[in-house]
Amino acid sequence: MPEYKAPLRDIRFAMQELLDFDGHYQRLPGAEDASMDMVDAILEEAGKFASQVLSPLNQTGDQGCRLGESGVETPEGFKEAYARYIEGGWPSLAQAQAFGGQGLPDSLATIVAEINGSANWSWTMYPGLSHGAMATLMTHATEALRDRYLPPLVEGRWTGTMCLTEPQAGSDLALLRTRAEPNEDGSYSISGTKIFISAGEHDMAENILHIVLARLPDAPAGNKGISLFLVPRFAVNDDGSLGEANSLGCGSLEHKMGIHGNATCVMNFDGARGFLLGEPNRGLACMFTFMNNARLFIAQQGICHAELSYQGALAYAKDRLQMRSLRGVAAPEKSADPIIVHADVRRMLLTQKAFAEGGRAFSYLCAQLVDLAHGAEDQAERQRAQERLALLIPIAKGFLTEAGVEAASLGIQVFGGHGYIAEWGMEQILRDARIAPIYEGTNGIQALDLLGRKVNGSKGALQRGFADEVQAFIESERNNAELAELIVELERQLQRWNSLTGQLITEIGADPAQLGAAAFDYMMYSGYTVLAYIWALSAVKAQQALAAGSTETAFYGAKLSTARFYFRRILPRNEGLAATLLDSANTLLDLPEDAF
Amino acid sequence: MPEYKAPLRDIRFAMQELLDFDGHYQRLPGAEDASMDMVDAILEEAGKFASQVLSPLNQTGDQGCRLGESGVETPEGFKEAYARYIEGGWPSLAQAQAFGGQGLPDSLATIVAEINGSANWSWTMYPGLSHGAMATLMTHATEALRDRYLPPLVEGRWTGTMCLTEPQAGSDLALLRTRAEPNEDGSYSISGTKIFISAGEHDMAENILHIVLARLPDAPAGNKGISLFLVPRFAVNDDGSLGEANSLGCGSLEHKMGIHGNATCVMNFDGARGFLLGEPNRGLACMFTFMNNARLFIAQQGICHAELSYQGALAYAKDRLQMRSLRGVAAPEKSADPIIVHADVRRMLLTQKAFAEGGRAFSYLCAQLVDLAHGAEDQAERQRAQERLALLIPIAKGFLTEAGVEAASLGIQVFGGHGYIAEWGMEQILRDARIAPIYEGTNGIQALDLLGRKVNGSKGALQRGFADEVQAFIESERNNAELAELIVELERQLQRWNSLTGQLITEIGADPAQLGAAAFDYMMYSGYTVLAYIWALSAVKAQQALAAGSTETAFYGAKLSTARFYFRRILPRNEGLAATLLDSANTLLDLPEDAF
Repeated sequence: MPEYKAPLRDIRFAMQELLDFDGHYQRLPGAEDASMDMVDAILEEAGKFASQVLSPLNQTGDQGCRLGESGVETPEGFKEAYARYIEGGWPSLAQAQAFGGQGLPDSLATIVAEINGSANWSWTMYPGLSHGAMATLMTHATEALRDRYLPPLVEGRWTGTMCLTEPQAGSDLALLRTRAEPNEDGSYSISGTKIFISAGEHDMAENILHIVLARLPDAPAGNKGISLFLVPRFAVNDDGSLGEANSLGCGSLEHKMGIHGNATCVMNFDGARGFLLGEPNRGLACMFTFMNNARLFIAQQGICHAELSYQGALAYAKDRLQMRSLRGVAAPEKSADPIIVHADVRRMLLTQKAFAEGGRAFSYLCAQLVDLAHGAEDQAERQRAQERLALLIPIAKGFLTEAGVEAASLGIQVFGGHGYIAEWGMEQILRDARIAPIYEGTNGIQALDLLGRKVNGSKGALQRGFADEVQAFIESERNNAELAELIVELERQLQRWNSLTGQLITEIGADPAQLGAAAFDYMMYSGYTVLAYIWALSAVKAQQALAAGSTETAFYGAKLSTARFYFRRILPRNEGLAATLLDSANTLLDLPEDAF
Repeated sequence: MPEYKAPLRDIRFAMQELLDFDGHYQRLPGAEDASMDMVDAILEEAGKFASQVLSPLNQTGDQGCRLGESGVETPEGFKEAYARYIEGGWPSLAQAQAFGGQGLPDSLATIVAEINGSANWSWTMYPGLSHGAMATLMTHATEALRDRYLPPLVEGRWTGTMCLTEPQAGSDLALLRTRAEPNEDGSYSISGTKIFISAGEHDMAENILHIVLARLPDAPAGNKGISLFLVPRFAVNDDGSLGEANSLGCGSLEHKMGIHGNATCVMNFDGARGFLLGEPNRGLACMFTFMNNARLFIAQQGICHAELSYQGALAYAKDRLQMRSLRGVAAPEKSADPIIVHADVRRMLLTQKAFAEGGRAFSYLCAQLVDLAHGAEDQAERQRAQERLALLIPIAKGFLTEAGVEAASLGIQVFGGHGYIAEWGMEQILRDARIAPIYEGTNGIQALDLLGRKVNGSKGALQRGFADEVQAFIESERNNAELAELIVELERQLQRWNSLTGQLITEIGADPAQLGAAAFDYMMYSGYTVLAYIWALSAVKAQQALAAGSTETAFYGAKLSTARFYFRRILPRNEGLAATLLDSANTLLDLPEDAF
């Protein structure tokens, strides 16, 4: 298994040089303390924790969880690592000071999660799920519930889950059947079966708070009859101590392709006592308030696995000797050349690198917008950030998780036969990565959200808003002769994105099926275009640093080389997508079901 | 796990309607008995065996092999299935009558292997490896060796392996270290360690014949000092009975991502007694005589997994209810519509179908050429078939195994969260499929073989020969108005393939590194183009059948729909590849190793 080392230099490049997180934190109310020195120190500590504590547990964690007599047991070492995580104060990093948090910006926690997640995704999901529960309670719980349940969650002594899916209700939550019956004391009795509940039960925390979607007795059918509930594993007494076990439990653990270290539970609620969050029948809307954060977390999974697989493949490619360079012997003192001399191996490594680094910056752009959407002083700026996020989150989740799977598969290929052998750890990365295009809304659902609710729903305004920002960047680099190849191509792609967007809106107006037919390819086209912007921006910043006399010539040179690689070797995929996304829905829908 | 059902109608379409196997067998010396009635009967039996015996063992076989005290134990039921396979006479189907075979054409055994392999790839590898050993012995063994070792192999009582790879020698066999010391009796003592030996040891057969690459004491270094040996697990006495165990054995079993039912062994040879095959130092050349068959077998793996995953995903898509069709409610009597109504689900299903069916016909085209390359009466026809195969085999192996992985991954996605759960069997298909781009020459090696040895090595002649055949088809359909969309586009793609080929040959002449830089994308471009030819041909044959009044309107209609889908939705990927494969090698090679 590759030993993960946090790419702190690249993280700093994305934060400081590309996205001016320094200025961002200075302007963000409450984040003024987050100086870049402090950020660097925190990320360095996070990197140490990830390398020293989490990374060694990644491969052993693949042996999976166990449902024992006293409940779910996580893999050896997970519990101890989590105890150290609490000791280090990590769960509370970006939580409100009123509930024991440190009040640092949310984006910083996002970047810490990336570092942890690269080292050990299965483990990182446990605190990751808590994050969603905290956001839900903070926004939708009554003051009394917040006071009782939030502090231990912020501290990390308790963890959280999100209980949405049921056997018959996956992408289609309208089909939910779990019931919530009101009790006389104002609480509710929750009954039903939830599946695919990540971190649903484990031995790492004293209590687990389940956020559960269920229907009230008089609820209308469909999406508009779903309410949100807090259902603790153990009752919590008035003094905060734990009472008796609630009527719920893990019925079984799923056997999965990967992320074996995370307990994916079938959760049975059998009249479990819970508390309403938000308004009755407004549960889905409440969920959506932190959907962006949850989806960004999964978008990061793509980067995490691309980065980890890249680190493994790069080390192997420098070490493994097979055949000679086509331009002549490179290492005459060795029996063969290291395979990194071969162009085809570099094609694979550079693809991983372009996705990992470009994806990282893309996700930080989103994380910055999350900060602003919740916390910008100015309402107009909050609004603008929300609109930008509405567009970018489904692109990030869909595109970056596809890229993560591709990168993980390439990492196997660089290793040849050894990549297929468990011992080397490369195949685990693909198995772990493969869930990301599925959960937290399949990529098909992301694509519908992007093209349907966001792009078509705004009559193109959300896409235009972002495209204008990219266009402004292009204008600013109009006379950059050295990088003209990139800037000119970026503009061509951008303008085609604009025009494809307009055409699709027209087509969807004429036939709603065009939405479903074009959505996935439109999402991928959008992703490649956003990443082109990121890489052009990276090239410009690298060029400026070198012009300013930086001695980090290898680092900035690699940025320029990878940007050119991305434009010449990856971005041309848009040529095919531009054709397919305009194709008629009839190509897909004409074939009768029985003729398949 | 999907229950596999052999797609006999589609197999018949590919064999009889697309590729005229009837006429082919009539003209092939020794194959005249293989009437289409007989072929149909054999394939129907094969389909039953695959469905009833092999398919039920596919998922249980995923639990893997065990190295016990008495050697490697295969999963429960594998041994019994193999006994039935022998009883049915399957191993000898296409082997020479002189050694107990049935003398049927090799292509028929290839198609039977596809049927078995779709039901259970891990199991099918055991007889698959024997096939390579039989071909080697038939061509390169002395008469005495053949008489002693071939009949039990043909009968299936013994199986074979191919022992090539060593820890330091994977793609680069020049680095082989296994030694062969001559004994006084004319035999050799083989010593060394081989890794990744599929079917290296198991409990299904009485004896195992290892075909081993090793170096003689006076051999020159590199590829030209490698010889080929037959090394039996148990000595064989003059009367054919088994003698003592040879000095060799399975040191350990590899833990792999998939194909768990097949034993992948580390094989230790410790002065094991073996026999020279062919001339000293000509071992690699001997291996190459049946390389085409071996690579075609792996190309089929892509089709097998595409087909199996398609069958699973299709059944699920008809059954699973989620959301409503964008064109309006399709199944008002149900709580939601079956997901096959959704365009994005159909995009995935049709991609699988286009790869499975198109790939099937592509592989049968190759299988027919294998028949001709070895057995055509006319020397010129043998030569022509060999040239065609030289071009098509690396395309088939590389392209179809990439397509198999993509199709298997799409099958998971159609299932959503359930696709990631082991119980449903869809994730196993991806794990099993992922080895195919690696073994039997990685796809990077296939690409170098295609563009380097074959295309550039023939100064383009091999590509031109096949392209002329496609062009002749285009000319014959020049006035086919109904299918003009396909024919015109096929011609555009073909002519661009021709011109890209010419440009690449020029560029490689100027800089040999262009070979490595372009090879993979050239292979993929070639694959998409070959499949476009297959699908255009399929559409024409379907059109003719319908015009002739066939009542199979659903079957032929699906062929036409899938052909159009392929041209409109898959083939545009060539637009990106046409750009990237002409990109300068410097984009990949400029970045210094330390700057990665």
